[in-house]
Amino acid sequence: MPILKSYLGGAWVEGGEPAQALLNPATEEVIAHVGSCAADLGAALAHARTRGGPALRALTFAERGKLLRGMCDALQAHRDELLDLAVANGGNTRGDAKFDVDGATFTLSAYADLGQELGERKFLLDGEGISLGRSPRFHGQHIRVPRHGVAVHINAFNFPAWGFAEKAAVALLAGMPVLSKPATSSAMVAHRIMQILVEKAALPEGSLSLLLGGVGDLLEHVGPQDVVAFTGSSDTGSRIRSLPGVIRNSVRVNVEADSLNAAILGPDATPGSETYDFFLKDVLRDITQKAGQKCTAIRRVLVPTSVSDRVRDDLADRLAAVTVGNPASEGVRMGPVATAGQLKDVREGIDLLARDGRLVFGASDLKPLGVEPGKGFFVGPALVELESGADGPSVHSHEVFGPAATVVPYSGQASEAAELVARGRGGLVSSVYSEDAAFTVEVVLAIAPHHGRVFLGSAKIAELSPGPGTVLPLLVHGGPGRAGGGEELGGARGLGFYMQRVALEGARPVVEKIAGIVAS
Amino acid sequence: MPILKSYLGGAWVEGGEPAQALLNPATEEVIAHVGSCAADLGAALAHARTRGGPALRALTFAERGKLLRGMCDALQAHRDELLDLAVANGGNTRGDAKFDVDGATFTLSAYADLGQELGERKFLLDGEGISLGRSPRFHGQHIRVPRHGVAVHINAFNFPAWGFAEKAAVALLAGMPVLSKPATSSAMVAHRIMQILVEKAALPEGSLSLLLGGVGDLLEHVGPQDVVAFTGSSDTGSRIRSLPGVIRNSVRVNVEADSLNAAILGPDATPGSETYDFFLKDVLRDITQKAGQKCTAIRRVLVPTSVSDRVRDDLADRLAAVTVGNPASEGVRMGPVATAGQLKDVREGIDLLARDGRLVFGASDLKPLGVEPGKGFFVGPALVELESGADGPSVHSHEVFGPAATVVPYSGQASEAAELVARGRGGLVSSVYSEDAAFTVEVVLAIAPHHGRVFLGSAKIAELSPGPGTVLPLLVHGGPGRAGGGEELGGARGLGFYMQRVALEGARPVVEKIAGIVAS
Repeated sequence: MPILKSYLGGAWVEGGEPAQALLNPATEEVIAHVGSCAADLGAALAHARTRGGPALRALTFAERGKLLRGMCDALQAHRDELLDLAVANGGNTRGDAKFDVDGATFTLSAYADLGQELGERKFLLDGEGISLGRSPRFHGQHIRVPRHGVAVHINAFNFPAWGFAEKAAVALLAGMPVLSKPATSSAMVAHRIMQILVEKAALPEGSLSLLLGGVGDLLEHVGPQDVVAFTGSSDTGSRIRSLPGVIRNSVRVNVEADSLNAAILGPDATPGSETYDFFLKDVLRDITQKAGQKCTAIRRVLVPTSVSDRVRDDLADRLAAVTVGNPASEGVRMGPVATAGQLKDVREGIDLLARDGRLVFGASDLKPLGVEPGKGFFVGPALVELESGADGPSVHSHEVFGPAATVVPYSGQASEAAELVARGRGGLVSSVYSEDAAFTVEVVLAIAPHHGRVFLGSAKIAELSPGPGTVLPLLVHGGPGRAGGGEELGGARGLGFYMQRVALEGARPVVEKIAGIVAS
Repeated sequence: MPILKSYLGGAWVEGGEPAQALLNPATEEVIAHVGSCAADLGAALAHARTRGGPALRALTFAERGKLLRGMCDALQAHRDELLDLAVANGGNTRGDAKFDVDGATFTLSAYADLGQELGERKFLLDGEGISLGRSPRFHGQHIRVPRHGVAVHINAFNFPAWGFAEKAAVALLAGMPVLSKPATSSAMVAHRIMQILVEKAALPEGSLSLLLGGVGDLLEHVGPQDVVAFTGSSDTGSRIRSLPGVIRNSVRVNVEADSLNAAILGPDATPGSETYDFFLKDVLRDITQKAGQKCTAIRRVLVPTSVSDRVRDDLADRLAAVTVGNPASEGVRMGPVATAGQLKDVREGIDLLARDGRLVFGASDLKPLGVEPGKGFFVGPALVELESGADGPSVHSHEVFGPAATVVPYSGQASEAAELVARGRGGLVSSVYSEDAAFTVEVVLAIAPHHGRVFLGSAKIAELSPGPGTVLPLLVHGGPGRAGGGEELGGARGLGFYMQRVALEGARPVVEKIAGIVAS
C-alpha cells in the first residue's frame, strides 16, 4: 500500500499520523495513504522563494516555455498510467480521465507555445510609452515583472491533473515558483505527476513543490509578494480570503468557486432542429461527465415554456440510457462521485432542488454496474423541473455538485432569460443556444456582467466545440460573485496575476532604455 | 453654522445626533457640523443601482466623457471657493489646496479626454479575436462590460477633492454609478463639490451620491456586482476586506494604503550636482507639502554613506527655513496636520523613528505663525537619521503620516539599496535620483516587484516633473503588500476595476457581430 509523500524544499517528505486513506470511490477499497504533513511549511515556502524564484526569473519566457513543453512531454509519456490512476482514485470513466489528463497536457502545451511567442525576454511591456507633460522628455511606460514570492495553488478534487497544470503552467511561465496542494481524496494523480516531473528533473530546484494532506499552517507564512490561487467551494474560498496574514499582507487571492451556470435555449431552436440537438447533447454531457462534478457544468436549463415539457422528456429519455457503475467495467458511462461526503451533499442537494419543483428523473433504486451491492459513492443522474414562473429559491442559489440539473421554463423573452440567469449572483459560464442573432446578442450583453465566459451555442460549431463545460487556455476562466470573483488563463492575460504592473516615470531616454531591455 | 447633508437617493438628507464638529485645524474653531446619517443605506445603494446604473450604461464613452468635462468645468468655475474651504477645513496652504483641487479637475479632464477617445461605444474589446480550434469557425473574443452595481468610494481625509474626483471619474466613465464617502474631518470640500454638481445637474439621477458621517451599515448592503475602492490606513483597508458581506459576495475591493516610499540617491549624484539639488527639492517638498500627509510622500531617504552627513545637513538647513503656521497667514509654507488624532499619531511616530537612530531636526518649541498660542494641530517638520548599517525596524515598518522622513545611509551599491527598499514590504512609489543609467536600470528592475510606480529622478526632467509624490492620471497608482495591493488610474487601465471581462466563445460570425457592436 503506497504512502504518498509531499515534495517540499527539494525533497520527498513523508507525512505522519493521522494518515488518511485514499479510496477507489467505486469500490471503497483503500488504495493509498497520505500522512499529515509535519514539515516546516514556512521553510518550504522560503526555499521556493529563494531558490525557485531566482532560478525562474533568470530564464526568458522562451526558456520557461521549454520547461512547460518538457513537463507536457513527460506527462504524455505516462498518459496511460495517469488515466488508470484517475479511474481508480477519482471514479472517472476513461473519458472523464482523458478530459482531466489531456486537459493538463493541452494547457501546458498552450502555455509552452505562449512562452515561445513571448520569446527572449524576462519581463513584459504593458501598453505603449506615454508622454506625461508638455515636453516629450517627461515620459511614462508600464511594465510587468514577476513577483518575488511563491504561487500557492490549492486545487479541487475533481481535476487533479488539469487543476494542477492549468495553474502551474501560468505561474511558471510568469516566472513564479509554485507550491501546489491537491485535494486529498483524489491526490494520487497529482502525486504521480510530481514523481514524473522530479524523476525527469523537469524544472529548476525550488520551482515546484507539492503539499499533500492538510494545508496546515501554510497560509500563515504567506507574504506580500506571494499569491494564492484556490479552486473549490465558496466557503473555503471565503475562509482563505479572511485569513489575517492574507489580509494583512494584501496577498493576492484568486478564487474559482462553483456556480449556477445556465444554458438558455432560444425560442427559435425548436425540437428537431440542429441547435436543439446540440443543446440537448451539451446539457446531457454536463450532467453526466465526471458525474457532474465540474465547476462549469450546466445547472440551470432555461427553456421556453412552450417546449419545456418536450425538453424535460427528451433529457429524461437520454438520462435513462446512461449506464452508471464502476468505471473500470465495460459499458459504464457515468462513475460514482468522489467521496462519501460528496455523495451525502449531492443527495441532500437534489432533495432541496426537488422541493422547488419536482424530480422528473432520478433512480431511487440505482444498481450500479460492476460493483458489490451497497458499495461505492453512486448517485444516479437527476433532473428537476420548475413550474413556469416558480420562484425556485434553491434552484437559483444552491449548487448541487453532482449529476443534477433543473429545467427552468421562461417566456422566450431574452430579458426574462437574462433576469433569471442573474439570480445566480455570478457565474463562471452560461450558454445561449440559438441561431437568432438578435436574441443571442441581447442575451449575451445582458448576462455578460455576471459571467467570466459566455458560450454561444450555434449549430455551426456543434462538431467543433467541447461545450460550455470545457475551460480553454486561451479564454479567461472565472466569474464574479458566487463564482469567486477570480480570473485565470486567457492566454497572456493569466500572467498578470503572477506579475506586478509598475509604472515607470522619468526622462524619456532612460525610460525607453528600460523598455528596450524589457522588450528584447 | 452650516450642517452638512448627505446626498442619497437623489435628495439631500440631513444627519441626526450625534453630530460631529468640523474644525479649522489651524485655529480649532468649529466651522461646520455633520450629523450621523440615519438614512436607509441599502435603499440608497439600490437607487444608484436601478437609476444611476442604467442611465450611465445607456450612454457612450464619449457621452460619459462629456459628463466628466461638465463636472470639471463646474469645479473650475468654483475653484477659489473650493481653495478657501480646503485652507479653512484642511489646514492646507494655498499651494496644498491647489494641489488637491487642481488635481481633481486635471483628473476629470484626463478622463473626459479618454471618453472622447473611446468614442461612440458602450463596451470595450479586450484584445483580438482568437481562433479556438482547428477550424476558424470556432472563435473567441474577450470584451469588457460595465458592472451592474454601485462603485462605493471611501476616501481619505488628505485629498477631499482629488480623492473624490480620481475615483469618480474612472467609475463614471466605465459606466458605474458612484456613492462617495469622504472622511468626516475634511468633508467640507467634498460636500461643496457635491452641491456644485447637484446645482448644475451635472449627472443623470442616481449616478452620484455622497454619504457624510460614519459609513454605518453601508457595506452590509454591497452585492456581487458592486465594488469598493478605499483609500486610507492599512488597518481600515483590512477591516473592509474582512467584512462578511464583502467576502461572501466576492465584492471587488481596491485598497490604497500608505507605504514607506523611498527615494534613493545614486552614488553619481554628488552634492552640488543638478541631480542632487533635484533630489533635495523633491524630498523637501514631500516632507512639507500637505504637512507630509500624502500617501505617496517620501518617508525613507536612502543616500550613499559617503554623503549622508551632507544630505542630512542640507535637508535640516532647508527645513529650518520652512515657516509653519496658520495657512491663512501670509508667508506660511506649512500648515497643521488635519486633526488632533493625527497630531498625536505623528508626534508618537516621530519618537518611534528617533529611537531607531536620532532626531536631527525637529523643533520642540514650535511657534506657529498667525495662531493663538496652544491652538491648532501643529507639528514641525522632522528629520531622523539612521547610522550606517543600523536595522531601523520602525523606519522600515512604521509610517508617520506627517512631515517626517528618515535618512538611511547605504553603501552606494544598487543591490543594497534595493534590499533596503524591499524591507518596506510593498510601496506605492519609490524614486531613484541618478544620471548613471546602469545604476538606475539595476535599481528599477530590482525594486519594481515591490511597487506600483517607480520615479526616475534625472536632472533632465527637473523642470518638468511634479516629483514622485504626485499621482498622474495616465499612470497606475497603488502598490503591493502594505500599500494595499490595489491599482487605480493608469488611463484606460483603471476602467478594468469597474468592468467585467468576459470571454465570448462561439461561431465566428456571431462572435464578430457582437465584437462589432462593442467596437462601434
